[in-house]
Amino acid sequence: MTVDVGAWLADERATVDAALERLLPATDAWPVRLHEAMRYAVFGGGKRVRPILARAACRAAGGDPARALEPGCALELIHTYSLIHDDLPALDDDRLRRGRPTVHVAYDEALAILVGDALLTEGFAVLARFPEGDDDAALRAEACRVVAAAVGSLGMVGGQVEDLEATGAGPDAGRLERIHRAKTGALLAAAVELGALIGGAGGERRREFLEFGCGLGLLFQIADDILDVTGTAASLGKSPGKDAAAGKLTYPAVFGLDAARRRLAELADGLGRAAAQLEGEGGVLDALVGYVARRDR
Amino acid sequence: MTVDVGAWLADERATVDAALERLLPATDAWPVRLHEAMRYAVFGGGKRVRPILARAACRAAGGDPARALEPGCALELIHTYSLIHDDLPALDDDRLRRGRPTVHVAYDEALAILVGDALLTEGFAVLARFPEGDDDAALRAEACRVVAAAVGSLGMVGGQVEDLEATGAGPDAGRLERIHRAKTGALLAAAVELGALIGGAGGERRREFLEFGCGLGLLFQIADDILDVTGTAASLGKSPGKDAAAGKLTYPAVFGLDAARRRLAELADGLGRAAAQLEGEGGVLDALVGYVARRDR
Repeated sequence: MTVDVGAWLADERATVDAALERLLPATDAWPVRLHEAMRYAVFGGGKRVRPILARAACRAAGGDPARALEPGCALELIHTYSLIHDDLPALDDDRLRRGRPTVHVAYDEALAILVGDALLTEGFAVLARFPEGDDDAALRAEACRVVAAAVGSLGMVGGQVEDLEATGAGPDAGRLERIHRAKTGALLAAAVELGALIGGAGGERRREFLEFGCGLGLLFQIADDILDVTGTAASLGKSPGKDAAAGKLTYPAVFGLDAARRRLAELADGLGRAAAQLEGEGGVLDALVGYVARRDR
Repeated sequence: MTVDVGAWLADERATVDAALERLLPATDAWPVRLHEAMRYAVFGGGKRVRPILARAACRAAGGDPARALEPGCALELIHTYSLIHDDLPALDDDRLRRGRPTVHVAYDEALAILVGDALLTEGFAVLARFPEGDDDAALRAEACRVVAAAVGSLGMVGGQVEDLEATGAGPDAGRLERIHRAKTGALLAAAVELGALIGGAGGERRREFLEFGCGLGLLFQIADDILDVTGTAASLGKSPGKDAAAGKLTYPAVFGLDAARRRLAELADGLGRAAAQLEGEGGVLDALVGYVARRDR
């Protein structure tokens, strides 16, 4: 199989957006302002990497990607909550996200906190409901367990705490890896693991998918760190150089830009080989590796 | 069966506290400051009403209350998260909770937001894991679904948004009921429903437990509103009269103190009868009704 990546990603995004539209409470549901703001945050130009990854892993594991659609959307809701809370004045104090005012700027700080809370909760609501089959109950419970572990105090939230603590504290390679693994890596890895699980992968094969997901999470974060240095405001939808200005621990800051680029290329090569082993040559996981390594956000 | 309510509640609290101790990541787990703060918030003198309710409902439904212990603790973690976020400067701006500095005062605002996020997530992690039997997977998935619905944008978070919007807007009985039902009622009702579900109640009987839980949630909130008017700083662990000063919509504010007390007494009578019907005379649910109606927090 060869993949026209651009067209395939556009198709995938449309499928994911339509599912998110169905899953979120209507804008006129009580309380209206909350539900408006939830949609403002979710439909803000996200690339939908996590749901697309979940569907790709499900397909690569031999399953029907349609079964991973809603669980993948749950991850997008949880990812969106994490961005809203990260952007708050008490945390990163970002006023712009993907070229638009952040939720606490467009609405207010109280609502931004509560919109994040609601989206995190809705993520688990969706994981608890899909796939809907009577035979899928064990899968749903396991999905809630896997995702909660990935985004809790030992995962994403822990990474955010360490990121705040490390800011301005000087370069530290071990700490950098711990932050990246937890803050962004864990949820991306969970997307791959969840998709593979829904696709029927168990035991050793599930572990191989998870390992691939961990590598992809790292690739994603190194690419992100490099883009903060090399991107333009138009391509990033936010000010470039923000991480460096804020004293954030990043790959270029710790290892230098050239070394970060070499690491990115090596990692992408290894992941391409792993993808080929998981799904055969030229499949969707390999296409995603290429996309993440070269993406222009 | 007759119940020495004081001794029974003290026993229950000790059981719940020991389980919470086991369920929360250790204080020395990475990141240490986050896990310290999670424990500071959880072990802050809470009455453990929700886990005790879940266990009582499980027993009343004919099940072993031990099976509802961890799921009940999950509700306590979620309740604790909601208090931490409610207390934030952007929301109710409370500096004292149960006689101690609130989390954002004891630590800082960023950490308080993230501690809340971590506790909400940990709540779902626990619901996804307990009860642990292979045969219990459908129960675990259903528990995640029920609780997510109770605390999401159409439940607890929605109630918090409406509460903020209603503050200072003048008396409105319909709005008051909507806020109370969502903001505190939904999670208390879910505690009863979840316990009954784990205890084996299905269909019509599950619906009766849920209805009892909704009534108990309302009773709890009316008692809380009255205590804000009549309580002392020592008994409340916070300043009395705070709701009125903040222009919050409460039962005494809308109906007057006497009418609120009459409503409390009538509701407690009705719930006592419902408890007797669910579990026989003089059981634990009836004891909890009495405790909630007369509690001195």
